Amino acid sequence: MPTSGDAPVYLDNAASTAMLPEAVEAMTRIMADPGNASSLHGSGRRARRHLEEARESVAASVGARPSEVIFTAGGTESDNLGIKGIFWARRRADARRRRIVISAVEHHAVIDPAQWLADRGDADLVLLPVDADGTVSPAALRAELAAHPHDTALVSVMWANNEVGTIEPVADLAAVAAEFGVPMHSDAIQAVGHIPVDFTAAGLAAMSIAAHKFGGPHGAGALVLRRDVECVPLLHGGGHERDIRSGTPDAAAAVGMATALAVSVAGLDSSMVRVAALRDRLLDALSGTEGCIVNGPLGDRRLPGNAHVAFRGCEGDSLLMLLDAHGIECSTGSACTAGVARASHVLLAMGMSTPDARSSLRFSLSPSTTTADVDRVAAVIDEVVDRARTAGMASVSAGEY
Amino acid sequence: MPTSGDAPVYLDNAASTAMLPEAVEAMTRIMADPGNASSLHGSGRRARRHLEEARESVAASVGARPSEVIFTAGGTESDNLGIKGIFWARRRADARRRRIVISAVEHHAVIDPAQWLADRGDADLVLLPVDADGTVSPAALRAELAAHPHDTALVSVMWANNEVGTIEPVADLAAVAAEFGVPMHSDAIQAVGHIPVDFTAAGLAAMSIAAHKFGGPHGAGALVLRRDVECVPLLHGGGHERDIRSGTPDAAAAVGMATALAVSVAGLDSSMVRVAALRDRLLDALSGTEGCIVNGPLGDRRLPGNAHVAFRGCEGDSLLMLLDAHGIECSTGSACTAGVARASHVLLAMGMSTPDARSSLRFSLSPSTTTADVDRVAAVIDEVVDRARTAGMASVSAGEY
Repeated sequence: MPTSGDAPVYLDNAASTAMLPEAVEAMTRIMADPGNASSLHGSGRRARRHLEEARESVAASVGARPSEVIFTAGGTESDNLGIKGIFWARRRADARRRRIVISAVEHHAVIDPAQWLADRGDADLVLLPVDADGTVSPAALRAELAAHPHDTALVSVMWANNEVGTIEPVADLAAVAAEFGVPMHSDAIQAVGHIPVDFTAAGLAAMSIAAHKFGGPHGAGALVLRRDVECVPLLHGGGHERDIRSGTPDAAAAVGMATALAVSVAGLDSSMVRVAALRDRLLDALSGTEGCIVNGPLGDRRLPGNAHVAFRGCEGDSLLMLLDAHGIECSTGSACTAGVARASHVLLAMGMSTPDARSSLRFSLSPSTTTADVDRVAAVIDEVVDRARTAGMASVSAGEY
Repeated sequence: MPTSGDAPVYLDNAASTAMLPEAVEAMTRIMADPGNASSLHGSGRRARRHLEEARESVAASVGARPSEVIFTAGGTESDNLGIKGIFWARRRADARRRRIVISAVEHHAVIDPAQWLADRGDADLVLLPVDADGTVSPAALRAELAAHPHDTALVSVMWANNEVGTIEPVADLAAVAAEFGVPMHSDAIQAVGHIPVDFTAAGLAAMSIAAHKFGGPHGAGALVLRRDVECVPLLHGGGHERDIRSGTPDAAAAVGMATALAVSVAGLDSSMVRVAALRDRLLDALSGTEGCIVNGPLGDRRLPGNAHVAFRGCEGDSLLMLLDAHGIECSTGSACTAGVARASHVLLAMGMSTPDARSSLRFSLSPSTTTADVDRVAAVIDEVVDRARTAGMASVSAGEY
């Protein structure tokens, strides 16, 4: 149990990061303004100015032009808009373009819209395999596109994986897609604010970002969309956001997002080094526990804040709950529906066995994580794993699994 | 010009209402919490509790059950989800159901998704006419459904019109739709928080609400959806919100919305009387100006806060700008693209001429509107209309129009 009065050790920043004080302050300062950014009067023009300044700031933070930033309500909407919107536009221009090529380790916000299009009979979904570290190979993409040069609608490969933190070779993949004239979208939701991200330099057609992953508010995100890429809207109405995303813009949320992103990006050089060192300290501590395997790549090919490990013979959910009881908050990093834990599609695609996949935990750090936080985990992990393993053995012998 | 130091008189509350202090306070109190409502640990469970309490509160405020409240990012998303989602589900169940029946005075967030489905060749769009007050007739709906009993996917008629404030006979229309087993959606975005709204009593299948119309935050809304109504998601991913709307829920925004709605509904009996009296005082003042016509119904069939008038011989945009220069903020209530004013489809459907439609202004009041606000308008309206009319005549003689 946590010592009375101790704040929890929050190591689930990949799920959601606490808002930065600067972002809260910037957002609340304008939240109570009455203006609708579409209104023509003074209050409306003021809201519009806040919105456009936020757009310029976000664009500068990710290497894009302001007119390329389409504000949305978050990462899932951005991914859905990028996948469905570009798919519909590409097929409308040429009905042969039915193929959607994504990696096998995408987030559900990319897989599920693509699968939905396939289930409707509109699209053919192609999953690119990954290696044991979760990396997509540009050669595999080239082979796929060479075999189907005329019937591919789009490619989508994430900038960094949300479970194991693998950083994908996005610029190399985008270069391959460009050889074939196929637009590439990237879910950069785990990357932006955590590692350097330059939309233009990467050669992408579209990119998703979400504010609550880097200290901005929930319910705010953007699809960064190159000007020459056609995209059918998901939300029709007043014609906001270049007629690509209707709905009254949330100027306060945009300002909160822009502020958090600017602060994160300004501190990136130092925070990356510091967070990676803490992450390595955590991995060292965890690796000393019996049956621990580190999932995903080491070093520069991994997000600085990501530690993902399996504890053989344990259930991830049991580990999570036991750690929570010690005031340590982390994640299994896998989808969980109605209490039934399913093995992560990411880990399975990397070649892990189902039992190992189900024994995995994700610790995700932020720039506000401290040495003391890491040492709190180190102090209890042996006991927690022992207990989870004993519970797991008991369940197996009772036929529960 | 406004007296130095005077705050603007904000009479554009139908576009966006300033957040209620209670809503700002409730929202900021939890905005900086780190938890993701899908996470299993303590911080996640706390966010989930905030979210579910907000859901219960919103449900209670609109006469629905908590499980019927699907949180979205706002009114446009709610309308798009209601129209496209129910249409796709109804057609999937029976391919004959191609007809979408809506009123001719719907908001673009209803018209445009329906038109998009029609443009793709998936749907047939039917517009129900309105009378001179903007009211849809239940008899007209019955005639339409009787002629097409098997091939209608859904009906959508707004609870109250966003331009002229006409309150539609929603329960009567829903009863007609129910006779034919057709689900009815209603865009209640202008009604909720302003007049009594009871989802269950009205007999609706689905209803859209938006927080920033009643003192809640931007970027927050809900589709209220009866449990037995199938609805295909627009946003696929993590399976949030009963698998109907994926995307990390924004607990802070939901709490802000619930708080604003609870405060609005609690004060409704008195605010309706007070706001309607101020609105009538404003209409009296405006009617004294030469060439003024009041658009829409009078009395109980109109939203308490809506005053919509035409000033013959003027351009609405000129009136708006001149009033803005006097520190009075209102709206033309019509779509405006790239500075080119188009006559409102609502006013044209009510039988107004294009010049009269283009000479219209909407003043929309809130419970915080004062007698002094109304009297500021009364004090300048003659001068403003004179000036706009003179400018209009000059433009006509210069061949600009």
